[in-house]
Amino acid sequence: MPGLQDGSDDREITLDRVGITDLVYPVSVPERGGGVQTTQANIGLFVELDHRARGAHMSRFVDVLEKHPRTLTAEGLEGLLEELRQTLEADVAYAEMECTFFVERRAPVSGARSLMACQVGYEASLSHTFDLATAVEVPVMTVCPCSKEATGGPAHTQRGYITVAVRANGRVWVEDVVEMVERCASAPVFPLLTGDDERSVIVEAHERPLFVEDLVRNVAELLDSDVRIRWYRVEGGNLDSVHDHNLYASVERSR
Amino acid sequence: MPGLQDGSDDREITLDRVGITDLVYPVSVPERGGGVQTTQANIGLFVELDHRARGAHMSRFVDVLEKHPRTLTAEGLEGLLEELRQTLEADVAYAEMECTFFVERRAPVSGARSLMACQVGYEASLSHTFDLATAVEVPVMTVCPCSKEATGGPAHTQRGYITVAVRANGRVWVEDVVEMVERCASAPVFPLLTGDDERSVIVEAHERPLFVEDLVRNVAELLDSDVRIRWYRVEGGNLDSVHDHNLYASVERSR
Amino acid sequence: MPGLQDGSDDREITLDRVGITDLVYPVSVPERGGGVQTTQANIGLFVELDHRARGAHMSRFVDVLEKHPRTLTAEGLEGLLEELRQTLEADVAYAEMECTFFVERRAPVSGARSLMACQVGYEASLSHTFDLATAVEVPVMTVCPCSKEATGGPAHTQRGYITVAVRANGRVWVEDVVEMVERCASAPVFPLLTGDDERSVIVEAHERPLFVEDLVRNVAELLDSDVRIRWYRVEGGNLDSVHDHNLYASVERSR
Amino acid sequence: MPGLQDGSDDREITLDRVGITDLVYPVSVPERGGGVQTTQANIGLFVELDHRARGAHMSRFVDVLEKHPRTLTAEGLEGLLEELRQTLEADVAYAEMECTFFVERRAPVSGARSLMACQVGYEASLSHTFDLATAVEVPVMTVCPCSKEATGGPAHTQRGYITVAVRANGRVWVEDVVEMVERCASAPVFPLLTGDDERSVIVEAHERPLFVEDLVRNVAELLDSDVRIRWYRVEGGNLDSVHDHNLYASVERSR
Repeated sequence: MPGLQDGSDDREITLDRVGITDLVYPVSVPERGGGVQTTQANIGLFVELDHRARGAHMSRFVDVLEKHPRTLTAEGLEGLLEELRQTLEADVAYAEMECTFFVERRAPVSGARSLMACQVGYEASLSHTFDLATAVEVPVMTVCPCSKEATGGPAHTQRGYITVAVRANGRVWVEDVVEMVERCASAPVFPLLTGDDERSVIVEAHERPLFVEDLVRNVAELLDSDVRIRWYRVEGGNLDSVHDHNLYASVERSR
Repeated sequence: MPGLQDGSDDREITLDRVGITDLVYPVSVPERGGGVQTTQANIGLFVELDHRARGAHMSRFVDVLEKHPRTLTAEGLEGLLEELRQTLEADVAYAEMECTFFVERRAPVSGARSLMACQVGYEASLSHTFDLATAVEVPVMTVCPCSKEATGGPAHTQRGYITVAVRANGRVWVEDVVEMVERCASAPVFPLLTGDDERSVIVEAHERPLFVEDLVRNVAELLDSDVRIRWYRVEGGNLDSVHDHNLYASVERSR
Repeated sequence: MPGLQDGSDDREITLDRVGITDLVYPVSVPERGGGVQTTQANIGLFVELDHRARGAHMSRFVDVLEKHPRTLTAEGLEGLLEELRQTLEADVAYAEMECTFFVERRAPVSGARSLMACQVGYEASLSHTFDLATAVEVPVMTVCPCSKEATGGPAHTQRGYITVAVRANGRVWVEDVVEMVERCASAPVFPLLTGDDERSVIVEAHERPLFVEDLVRNVAELLDSDVRIRWYRVEGGNLDSVHDHNLYASVERSR
Repeated sequence: MPGLQDGSDDREITLDRVGITDLVYPVSVPERGGGVQTTQANIGLFVELDHRARGAHMSRFVDVLEKHPRTLTAEGLEGLLEELRQTLEADVAYAEMECTFFVERRAPVSGARSLMACQVGYEASLSHTFDLATAVEVPVMTVCPCSKEATGGPAHTQRGYITVAVRANGRVWVEDVVEMVERCASAPVFPLLTGDDERSVIVEAHERPLFVEDLVRNVAELLDSDVRIRWYRVEGGNLDSVHDHNLYASVERSR
């Protein structure tokens, strides 16, 4: 049934993106070990709107998504976008998804297990080619090298969040990104630590003081050395403990 | 191993709550139909801290939680709190969980299926007795009766959110609360509506214009008539479409 | 002009609060030194709605507020609530305001000046009597005593936020609350510190390690000794740097 | 005094941005009529970090900002960035500010005055040239044309937010952007409306139903016709009242 959206517009203004945002829907994220986590995502779906068309049939976005309830993955985004292009008669389609993924942690001394939540984001587009960027936010601990040197001992430490976004040849496992970032920080953070674990983490972290600039470069160096990575952006933010603002560094590179 | 937390404090100040907040962990929510949804919760766990104790062993909160990974439910909270009381040697323990739950919707004319996300919250405490409050936030649509009467036709409509918190004898199904609230609104909202569905929703909603005050009283009236409900609080907020602020009403009652 | 709101409701359900939320409006906060800061507040205004009335005239809330544009203060809330009671023919009226206030900081060694933002909240009600609670959120730094003892030196430090809410005889200066909280922490935080300042802050903070439990009790002890304080609630949250969740303690007391 | 930040790094990784985020500081925004509003901004300040330098002196960002307490405006950003470039010995400096600005509204029939809050954002950079983008978020009301046509009368209406970002020759007044957007919507929103005002707004809005696509194109068309605008991005989001997700459209153009 033709609707008002099918009317024409003669103003020669192509809209870059038309669609829906803030739709919360269940999706799946595969685990490196072979399992699958079902989680909910905040989803945005869009198409480019040709300058001649008045509007997009907004209900079709959810209609297409609904064909994959609880099973949509990053790998399924290309098919979803192809279907959006056809159903909405568009040249380009876009999808954005943000969700939580749990990584299993083992405390360094006691081996105590716990689950750490990481935010995972996907940005996908399909025109002539399919493009997918995967982003993972990893919480870490940093020890300030300045204060350590200045006092000859005590330093200020803080929680930081490093977000690594990559375009890669082949699948990107969240667990791989988390492990890479943690090797680059003063220390990982853990949901569960005994007293012995905590002592070990603190001592090792103080042997590896670093600025947020060092941390972002450490991650960038590892990404530079991985030939599967075609593009990356690394952003770091420290919840500095001597200030009420945050310290930040970022770098973006294409191969 | 005794720690500094086990030291004493002689200031005679009992702390109402000591514990952890903003821990994101996987939990489960049972569906009325017999299934189970695995979802992530933002969790707070606390104990009362006796005035003689210096601190609580904070790692024990996660340690206790970790015994139920991905399977903790509202029904499991009493056991969790009992274990927290014992492990942390406390008279009172508290738990708070907030998570997303999906309710299946069917569009009124086409029957098109989709999933609507609802925020669900639990507040539990255990001292001599166990207490549990369950809260569900339900999005709805409201049609303003004033503007409808004033114009003799067109009215402003808006999305609203009604939060119903209850203490009840017996289990509280999220689906029951959602259906109750929707019967009290101008109309439900749906993730997926065809053109015919949308027309039906709009026409029916305009036959049932109501203030947020009416809506909250409609829900309260239903709760008053349900003998299983021992306590409730109903809060409604309309994202008013002629203003940039929200309209609000609330009522709290114990039987 | 009578409206639909003036209609009657026979369900015997008095609504605790009916009104507006999330209205952003300019207000003023007096400085201890005699100046005034003009800032914007997120405002909620409410009245109790008698069980016989169908609704409240929602526009009257903004109408009353508009008589004090940019000049409303905590001290002006009693008059505002009295006017709301009269205009909306209600027994009880409520106001909530949250805003940002700037406190001048001087770095401990260099004396460098900067401005630190604090969140300030007011909750006021007027029935037979007027009641006002003032809350101030203060960022601080804490050094973990456990890790310091365990390692014999290095410790983890983090930013924390302490919220002090009080009902007092006489005016409550934001600056007084900030100074009180900072005396109770391992160290204050500062927007601007030179290298020498930072070293001084770190060294002094490590001489004063404390749990969030200690910090909350330190503040409670000071409030207990101030006869002007009739009621208080102290809440502390540490952005723990070895975890991705926060540590929490709270206490509430009436004289 | 040289610090660890002045050390060298031989990994050939220039960091795009190094600096501070989430600093809340008082700033000023000039009014079109000649006045000035003092408000607080969430501020980010950054420099590019040469690949040979280990780190940036983070305290210098606040030190430079502190020279303009309460008086920094968009017009002052070029001077601020020049000072950051010199003080931090950087080729490029960046500033981001987000704040609230109040626009005076007059209700259409009664003429009742009130203040409407708009979010204003600035993004500035200085390398060889200075670049400034100004963004204003304006709340509006939209009436759905589909539902109006389908029912032959009642339609669903909702609040929407349109964000207009521009690079322009000459100063951009917030008030100009607000007025432009409101001419493009079904109706403006107002903090304060009497019953007569509300009726007038509703009736006029229903005579002007539009999709978010129409609204964004209406704004784009006006911007296209303004020769002072060198670049723009218009984004619109409707808080759709029959759904719990939002509808979105955007377009970005350079002259």
